[in-house]
Amino acid sequence: MTTNPGNTAEPVKPIDIRADPDAGASEPVRIALLGCGTVGAEVVRLLDEQADDLAARIGAPLELAGIAVRRPDRDRGPLPVPRELFTADAAGLIKRDDVDIVVEVVGGLEPARGWLVQALQSGKSVVTANKALLAEDTATLAAAAADGNADLYYEAAVAGAIPLLRPLRESLHGDRITRITGIVNGTTNYILSKMDSTGAGFAEALDEATELGYAEADPTADVEGFDAAAKAAILASLGFHTRVTAADVYRVGITEVTAADVASAQEMGCVVKLLCIAELRRDADGSESVSARVHPAMIPRSHPLASVGDAYNAVFVEAQAAGRLMFYGAGAGGAPTASAVLGDVVAVARNRRLGRSAVADSAYANLRVRPMGEVATRYHISLDVADRAGVLAQVAALFAEHGVSIQTVRQEGRGGAAGTGGDALLVIVTHRAPDAALRSTVDALAELDIVRQVASVMRVEGE
Amino acid sequence: MTTNPGNTAEPVKPIDIRADPDAGASEPVRIALLGCGTVGAEVVRLLDEQADDLAARIGAPLELAGIAVRRPDRDRGPLPVPRELFTADAAGLIKRDDVDIVVEVVGGLEPARGWLVQALQSGKSVVTANKALLAEDTATLAAAAADGNADLYYEAAVAGAIPLLRPLRESLHGDRITRITGIVNGTTNYILSKMDSTGAGFAEALDEATELGYAEADPTADVEGFDAAAKAAILASLGFHTRVTAADVYRVGITEVTAADVASAQEMGCVVKLLCIAELRRDADGSESVSARVHPAMIPRSHPLASVGDAYNAVFVEAQAAGRLMFYGAGAGGAPTASAVLGDVVAVARNRRLGRSAVADSAYANLRVRPMGEVATRYHISLDVADRAGVLAQVAALFAEHGVSIQTVRQEGRGGAAGTGGDALLVIVTHRAPDAALRSTVDALAELDIVRQVASVMRVEGE
Repeated sequence: MTTNPGNTAEPVKPIDIRADPDAGASEPVRIALLGCGTVGAEVVRLLDEQADDLAARIGAPLELAGIAVRRPDRDRGPLPVPRELFTADAAGLIKRDDVDIVVEVVGGLEPARGWLVQALQSGKSVVTANKALLAEDTATLAAAAADGNADLYYEAAVAGAIPLLRPLRESLHGDRITRITGIVNGTTNYILSKMDSTGAGFAEALDEATELGYAEADPTADVEGFDAAAKAAILASLGFHTRVTAADVYRVGITEVTAADVASAQEMGCVVKLLCIAELRRDADGSESVSARVHPAMIPRSHPLASVGDAYNAVFVEAQAAGRLMFYGAGAGGAPTASAVLGDVVAVARNRRLGRSAVADSAYANLRVRPMGEVATRYHISLDVADRAGVLAQVAALFAEHGVSIQTVRQEGRGGAAGTGGDALLVIVTHRAPDAALRSTVDALAELDIVRQVASVMRVEGE
Repeated sequence: MTTNPGNTAEPVKPIDIRADPDAGASEPVRIALLGCGTVGAEVVRLLDEQADDLAARIGAPLELAGIAVRRPDRDRGPLPVPRELFTADAAGLIKRDDVDIVVEVVGGLEPARGWLVQALQSGKSVVTANKALLAEDTATLAAAAADGNADLYYEAAVAGAIPLLRPLRESLHGDRITRITGIVNGTTNYILSKMDSTGAGFAEALDEATELGYAEADPTADVEGFDAAAKAAILASLGFHTRVTAADVYRVGITEVTAADVASAQEMGCVVKLLCIAELRRDADGSESVSARVHPAMIPRSHPLASVGDAYNAVFVEAQAAGRLMFYGAGAGGAPTASAVLGDVVAVARNRRLGRSAVADSAYANLRVRPMGEVATRYHISLDVADRAGVLAQVAALFAEHGVSIQTVRQEGRGGAAGTGGDALLVIVTHRAPDAALRSTVDALAELDIVRQVASVMRVEGE
């Protein structure tokens, strides 16, 4: 073995190639901050704390021109800014000549959309974490950015601090992304991880998440998958150069995931996760289409996403040349989200200083968005059936009729002895088939005399 | 549970916002390719296969102006380019007026350095995968890029296809990176994963890696850690805005890792990985310094890096605001590396088309590089000792003398019965201490009468 004593001698004298030795002398780049909640306050704090580094990286200092909030007089604790910076007049702040960049951390569709369109059209760059707005209407924002020749950046909108959108927009531009599978909602991942590790049911795990601050008082946006669906739309749009909106995303939340589903998954060597999946499909005739969906699914424990626990997020990207990639990190929280916001602020501030603008979002591929019925998935189905001869044959025939191929089937007697007319549990995992065919199979199963109950249905992903 | 039938109705008509509808009409951006081995051939193939997508993303078509190789007449199989493109005259090709971008996949210091300096100084953008050159002399390349106002991109130089350098350079620029821990060499990760799963020794695992094509005929660069050290230098430079070269990197390879070390790690709930670690340290007086090192280390199985198996790479980044991030993917191979190269090609081609250049590498922070002796680490030490009363007290006293605090100690009799003067094994894990103190402790242990042999010493990371 060779070892390199390397730097045990004198440290090597670093070469002085500063980003811009005159940084301090340059005109400041001025920011209007819209919103000062958890993320906004952290942005204010970091702007102050990292001021020197930020100035060196940009080549000019950053300055807060003003902070628009609903109640400017509210006590906000020890923020390192004078109270005069706070204003209730967001539109007036955006309009000011000395504002270069607008940072929006308010969220929601209106009035945020109007403010950002106003900013972009007047040539001010925008950094936003507003996933709901982007998922609803990136088209309007992109058009305003093009009008005003301004930058629109939104790294913080998906997967918090994880640098994900820039790699998708830029690093993988020489490749063809085929599939993006993400755990993009921390609340539901916390709940499902808890159900997996403790055997708790959904309600119990949600209670604990609420107590610990992982779930909001009204958890609907998280547990029903609305938050994840917005992110799915953004990821599908960027990954496939096609406008996909939240309305295009098939969505099922986790409220009906039971302790029994989680136990079933464990028996298969799987774990239940709320996945957002954006897929490219090329048909035999060469035509391409995309799909985007959010639903709970079983994935094998050996899959890199399976070990993403607690409130962490991760996004697994498959690309033709690059192969399998994964990006992992904190998906929410004030500081992580503020980190993503500030990364974007540095980028747009540099662009302004160098008199250039970023390449706009592209939707050149303009692919058809497939409805869920056409998307190929696999199902895990648990059936309570009468435990008598011929049941399996009858069930198998019904799958065949619907053109769905069975991969595995497991039968467990559980009422009286087998064959005595008691209950049995039939657990079936299918091969990939169009979702519409799988759904109609399940509907038909429910109608069979010998099926007492379709106990659970869950999609299986990750092979 | 609410569900969103969403796109079961008519698919939403996509909005036609093309990146540039006139892309086809624009002047082509022309590439000189230096080298046509595994990666180069894949670049040629992808340039052909993805031509339409690349043109749409750039706003202009890409064209190969020429390919410089040592033997232009060699048969290269079915590459989608005319033979006339091949030339042995790299310098002449770079000089041609119709060349806009130089892509270098030759590797090594010379003649690559001369070519790239020539290209950059004459204003041609460079995309390179040459980690050895970057680790040795980014300063010269960065100076040439500044001279010629040209772009220098090298995403493929570290962790193959994983989009890592762009996030470090750009996404995290609003944050403060404190530590980068990476598995950045696929060959050694394959070998160590094999040793972990089968109990094989180093030589046996290396043989298997060689047979399967994971290790080269001469594996020195990989198994001695040279390859990882080059990447450590690049990561430390980017992460800490300071020039760190390969000579600054402390380096130990994996050739002395034994099956017993791997078994010891397993007993501690750990796995042995070859890690590259770049760290920022802030002293009590506020002064900052960086360190970079490559060595095998035990990390807990619960650490996200522990489950990175086979020849995969992953880089774990800790930042002040963003928290813990991880980037995972294929670290080598023709197609993954070509994907990274092409991502850079798209970026520099866009820059050229828009008449702008990227922000140059910055070394503004210009921090001191700490020698290894000053770096705080933890050691796992196995000692063969005489099994008699007072041994542990004597060993513990020696640690105390050197100012090293013991975290855990485990004693196992293994010769005769305990206390009869046979052999025993003493396994000690320390708290963090300066590496120099740990090394002198180990040296002193070897001198103790009661110590028959220092059986193994390995660093422990990841808490």
